[in-house]
Amino acid sequence: VNPGPLPSALEWEGGIPGTLLLLDQTLLPDEERRLRIDRVAPLIEAIQRLAVRGAPALGCAGAYGAVLAAQSLQGEPASSRLARLEESAARLAAARPTAVNLARGVERILVRARALSAAAGDPPGGWARELLDEARAFHREDEVTCRAIGRNGAALLSERPAILTHCNAGALATGGAGTALAVVYAARDSGRQVSVFANETRPLLQGARLTAWELQRAGIPVTLEVDAAAGALLASGRVDAVVVGADRIAANGDVANKIGTYPLAVLAREHGVPFYVAAPLTTIDATCPDGGAIPVEQRPPEEVLEAAGRRFAPPGVPAWNPAFDVTPARLVTALITEAGVVRAPDRAAIAALLAGRPAGGPAPLARQTPTSSG
Amino acid sequence: VNPGPLPSALEWEGGIPGTLLLLDQTLLPDEERRLRIDRVAPLIEAIQRLAVRGAPALGCAGAYGAVLAAQSLQGEPASSRLARLEESAARLAAARPTAVNLARGVERILVRARALSAAAGDPPGGWARELLDEARAFHREDEVTCRAIGRNGAALLSERPAILTHCNAGALATGGAGTALAVVYAARDSGRQVSVFANETRPLLQGARLTAWELQRAGIPVTLEVDAAAGALLASGRVDAVVVGADRIAANGDVANKIGTYPLAVLAREHGVPFYVAAPLTTIDATCPDGGAIPVEQRPPEEVLEAAGRRFAPPGVPAWNPAFDVTPARLVTALITEAGVVRAPDRAAIAALLAGRPAGGPAPLARQTPTSSG
Repeated sequence: VNPGPLPSALEWEGGIPGTLLLLDQTLLPDEERRLRIDRVAPLIEAIQRLAVRGAPALGCAGAYGAVLAAQSLQGEPASSRLARLEESAARLAAARPTAVNLARGVERILVRARALSAAAGDPPGGWARELLDEARAFHREDEVTCRAIGRNGAALLSERPAILTHCNAGALATGGAGTALAVVYAARDSGRQVSVFANETRPLLQGARLTAWELQRAGIPVTLEVDAAAGALLASGRVDAVVVGADRIAANGDVANKIGTYPLAVLAREHGVPFYVAAPLTTIDATCPDGGAIPVEQRPPEEVLEAAGRRFAPPGVPAWNPAFDVTPARLVTALITEAGVVRAPDRAAIAALLAGRPAGGPAPLARQTPTSSG
Repeated sequence: VNPGPLPSALEWEGGIPGTLLLLDQTLLPDEERRLRIDRVAPLIEAIQRLAVRGAPALGCAGAYGAVLAAQSLQGEPASSRLARLEESAARLAAARPTAVNLARGVERILVRARALSAAAGDPPGGWARELLDEARAFHREDEVTCRAIGRNGAALLSERPAILTHCNAGALATGGAGTALAVVYAARDSGRQVSVFANETRPLLQGARLTAWELQRAGIPVTLEVDAAAGALLASGRVDAVVVGADRIAANGDVANKIGTYPLAVLAREHGVPFYVAAPLTTIDATCPDGGAIPVEQRPPEEVLEAAGRRFAPPGVPAWNPAFDVTPARLVTALITEAGVVRAPDRAAIAALLAGRPAGGPAPLARQTPTSSG
């Protein structure tokens, strides 16, 4: 297998003025089309219809989106443009409620914009150019973070690991190689024979449409199953580890992720299979005390009443369609971050991680990383 | 609400010669079309593509199918027709492997045919006519059984029960009012305000297409959700009981049912919600020692790669598609049968049930039935 490069969910084209190119993930795997976005309003629309999705990718989209707003304010007087940027940024940050990364990406640009406003005069390259540099740095950091998550996670796996994953936490969900799938890619790159079982992930079928496409392209063996088959699959003994991403992690380690993640965590524990959450530190929201405080987006019932664009339920039947569920920290075997692996995450371990200290002792985080999952 | 009559999955039209009418469930809810079947080969085809499905309905289809075979053998010499009937019956009984009821329905007619062959001369109405009477009796018994299951199950429920169910274990799955849904209908008929959460049941969407249609028609409030949302739903505290049907129950109480049933049982226990299996005694296979001995049908991968007739997965990606999973008896709060309710079913309780004795004591089964689910 000679894998191609990983797909890129989004990139900035040009300088200032420039354009945000988004791979329209609603069209995959049938069509690889890039949306050209140069204003905040169509970006919000693209985010809401999930043309771009995945917590870290939403972070990058938020940062670049704030640059789009700044770019359109280049002609404004310096005295008013920060306030107008803050307005656009607030709308953008609220486009989807659950993933904390979207607001984080937006905020990163705002912090820089506020600092620039406090200084006397524009920087030599111009205000928006400076903010674009910040967004690009944020994007590059995400790439580096994904690689580190991959390395840290791969160290937990056996020599021929079969991984069960849910939704898409791959290159398509980040500015880099993914979170859960970065672990898969890193395992392959370290010489392991890794294979993946992908839950199709109803209602929007991100597993079938995105994860299967991305892994097939990368030359990783992937098998699809319906979400409800995960119980039988885990009971069959064929899964060595469940690895998923996260949209928001509360201060106590509770994890909000795509609807259907929580049942996997319960079933993994039932069968003694490790349940790993792979996510960057930016996904941790220290202001959320626990999972109950994480807002869970309710999406339109039509997503449940249809599949692949065809309606099959009888007219008039209502549907319940939360986009995410919450997995209690006690079900998480380990949290895989760029800063290291936290086994049995809890409030103290998360606080230590955010403070740059290893949980439970003075050893550097790298020394805590086990070399096999057992 | 003024509910209409329940839909009928199958009925025999005429005498001998006659025709088996099957409601083509693959077309629901868009179209109510009845297939007219007068030979065994097209009946096997209809069973395999799930035009008729559900363990008790397959039992009735098996019985009527054996009559179709007998009817086509009316002109044969009495000396050879039994052997030819046995041949057709064996093909029919093997059309699907998991539900034991299909083979049971076929066998019921064979037993009668063997008895007739042992007697001197044909009965006054003719050989096939006598077998049709037997099939009709089998069908009527299923109706009576469904009503008894409903009554016994309804007695377990609270005054305003919210039921979570999977797949379709309703009128469409039986020769009567259903198994799991018979419990819902009986609860309504006894004055309770019952409502249902229906898992859509990928890959073939029997929950969205059949259960939603059947319940809506009957005036029972029903809400659909994707199968993977059941964890969040149970965690939310909105479900009072999970009630499902069964395709085969082993001698130790292990239950084979539609893929996705087992995760519900694990999640129900996690949240202290009772998990009930509603099934006729004919679903119990005393020759199967435990769930590991139940054959689980593997269905075509295309069912997973498509939904509602549209393909969405990338070409070349394989899928794993078991039609059923096995729920260990220890996760079953109670088995609801026509002969009574068996709490915490195990080998001894199942043996006692089949022997017509209540489990654990001399009290009649009716006295064992609790009046509330707690």
